[in-house]
Amino acid sequence: MRTTVGIIGGGPAGLLLARLLHRAGIDCVVLESRTREYVERRQRAGMLEQGTVDALREAGAAERLTAEGMIHQGIELRFDRERHHIDFPGLTGGRTVTIYAQTEIVKDLVALQLADGPPLLFEAEALAVEKPESATPVVRFLHEGREQTLTCAWVAGCDGFHGISRDAFPAEVSRSYGHEYPYSWLGVLAEVPPSCDELIYARGEGGFALHSMRSATVSRLYLQVPDRTDPDDWPDDRIWDELAARFAIDADWTLNRGPITAKSVTTMRGYVHEPMRHGRLLLAGDAAHIVPPTGAKGLNLAVSDVRVLARGLVELHRTGDTQLLDRYSELCLQRVWQATRFSDDMTRMLHTQPNEDAFDARMQLARLRRITASRHAAAELAANYSGLPLPL
Amino acid sequence: MRTTVGIIGGGPAGLLLARLLHRAGIDCVVLESRTREYVERRQRAGMLEQGTVDALREAGAAERLTAEGMIHQGIELRFDRERHHIDFPGLTGGRTVTIYAQTEIVKDLVALQLADGPPLLFEAEALAVEKPESATPVVRFLHEGREQTLTCAWVAGCDGFHGISRDAFPAEVSRSYGHEYPYSWLGVLAEVPPSCDELIYARGEGGFALHSMRSATVSRLYLQVPDRTDPDDWPDDRIWDELAARFAIDADWTLNRGPITAKSVTTMRGYVHEPMRHGRLLLAGDAAHIVPPTGAKGLNLAVSDVRVLARGLVELHRTGDTQLLDRYSELCLQRVWQATRFSDDMTRMLHTQPNEDAFDARMQLARLRRITASRHAAAELAANYSGLPLPL
Repeated sequence: MRTTVGIIGGGPAGLLLARLLHRAGIDCVVLESRTREYVERRQRAGMLEQGTVDALREAGAAERLTAEGMIHQGIELRFDRERHHIDFPGLTGGRTVTIYAQTEIVKDLVALQLADGPPLLFEAEALAVEKPESATPVVRFLHEGREQTLTCAWVAGCDGFHGISRDAFPAEVSRSYGHEYPYSWLGVLAEVPPSCDELIYARGEGGFALHSMRSATVSRLYLQVPDRTDPDDWPDDRIWDELAARFAIDADWTLNRGPITAKSVTTMRGYVHEPMRHGRLLLAGDAAHIVPPTGAKGLNLAVSDVRVLARGLVELHRTGDTQLLDRYSELCLQRVWQATRFSDDMTRMLHTQPNEDAFDARMQLARLRRITASRHAAAELAANYSGLPLPL
Repeated sequence: MRTTVGIIGGGPAGLLLARLLHRAGIDCVVLESRTREYVERRQRAGMLEQGTVDALREAGAAERLTAEGMIHQGIELRFDRERHHIDFPGLTGGRTVTIYAQTEIVKDLVALQLADGPPLLFEAEALAVEKPESATPVVRFLHEGREQTLTCAWVAGCDGFHGISRDAFPAEVSRSYGHEYPYSWLGVLAEVPPSCDELIYARGEGGFALHSMRSATVSRLYLQVPDRTDPDDWPDDRIWDELAARFAIDADWTLNRGPITAKSVTTMRGYVHEPMRHGRLLLAGDAAHIVPPTGAKGLNLAVSDVRVLARGLVELHRTGDTQLLDRYSELCLQRVWQATRFSDDMTRMLHTQPNEDAFDARMQLARLRRITASRHAAAELAANYSGLPLPL
């Protein structure tokens, strides 16, 4: 098989790239190792920056998002039994965020791709990217029981943190940076209306908790738990009790409880691979970087990578100019490091450290209090959370 | 001996308090354990917030400060071989800071006090504060070879971190919070004109360095060094070479070198004691809290405590109202915790961690870069550095 852009990975990054290229008349092929059912069922993030919504609109993939997405004017910070609304439009000159689950984005993009798009192969497991330095890199992959090759002009590695694209970067040009945070998140999906309209980031006495939602009838909730926590040690009642304790402010506020339909534990990690391009292989999204989920940046970073990458490929296609593609890694990494920094700040400010001393706890409270007292500090949070501008 | 306010400690906090009380017609006695010569020679901080300058003016102690103090419009951040000016007046609506050494403030206040002030006893070593809960607390002290007592209506504990005032707080009402940073500062005083007009906060490859000045002919410089560094291991040439390396940007900038006249190593610590008042004993300055010097907050916090304390005592003297004194601890601690938080942020952003990993280093650079890219982030630094408002 031959194509102009071989895209490894059918998550939101790969699918959105395919869509943007298709609309610009650039042919591509998407290889996804899992089944369609699996891909459409993965529970992931759900907070979209304005720029992410714009990119999905530009790709013609925002019809259901526009109808069903919940626009949020900010977030709530909760600590010391106080609640503080951070007003994004007021602090950023009108910006908002949208709640719409990544799973739904993937469903929308898959449907469009299968309707009129370039090839999207499920159960096509990429094995290796070969000759990325050459003019015709090749992706070797397994599909329908046999090994095949996809010869490309460019390869986009959108295959996530555990993907194989990054392996094609020679060790001597690669540098990676990683940090593991010493706690995890227990995430639950519950068939119960959200307890309030707001995303709540709470620094409770027992640790961090996040109140979010998937729809008017489904809540998404997270609890900080120790590393290596077994979800089976957390029966539903224990989860609700702990959530209620961490969100507690006064008698007027209660947490809605209901049937829990999914439960999983996620570790917290920061990771960045430099550079993001080697020859004609370009990484986008989790294939190049991971952030802890506290800043809600993972999906948004993947989309901003893809926006830069699509523009670079379209520029080349239309004008023969590689200027933007040549700056791809540098442009993306500026934004990646800032999002990683913001995610690190949010994570450290809201989680209880194992062996935390009383001084550290007071520093966290002082940071939170400063955000609620200083317009500049609040505006910094709002600007970062709602999304820094694309570096274009 | 009897007085209205017994002041333990003849550093800037105690001396300024005595001055403010004296001008309001409240009698007081200052007990200082050291000699005048010793007190006037101690090398300490030198960066004054606008509020600190205002307080010295209000005390009638700013004549020489006004003539000799160097007004600074900001600081320079230096990292990655780049220099960035942080414009305080532009970011804060006109605020500046003033360079004038603490030693000089002490000389000015001592001279005034000895000229017309209430008693200032040198070599008067406070031993204990007794009966702080009673209407007549007593300070026991050694002076002229014998133990004496000072019976007071109020006692101000301005005797620094190693003073005895804090010991009079019963354990059951006290809570203390501490953090030791895993590095120290080697500070030098050099007979050489400053290398530029700016305070420079540098994150060099070998660690933090600070360029400051005492006058047009005397430089004050600091280097991050490992804990337990022996200054004798740092001959002058080694100091200059290391400073030059950490401040290095390009060939156009050079560090002026000259004779080093003083050299000392300081540990970096954060510490807060709560509450700051017990009965009729009130702590001010280092007696209650210590910050690492990176934010230049120690002297300024002492002065803001004293401003609140003086206002409280004057209010009581004039109206019989103890409302302000009753809120003394709460009012001061708000500002203390914010200054401690800012000092912690500055310290962590600029120092190399022992065993630092590459991820941490990138996080520091991302934080520094964000301050130079975002007006809100820069304004937050400027607001905190130039001094948060008094909580009055």
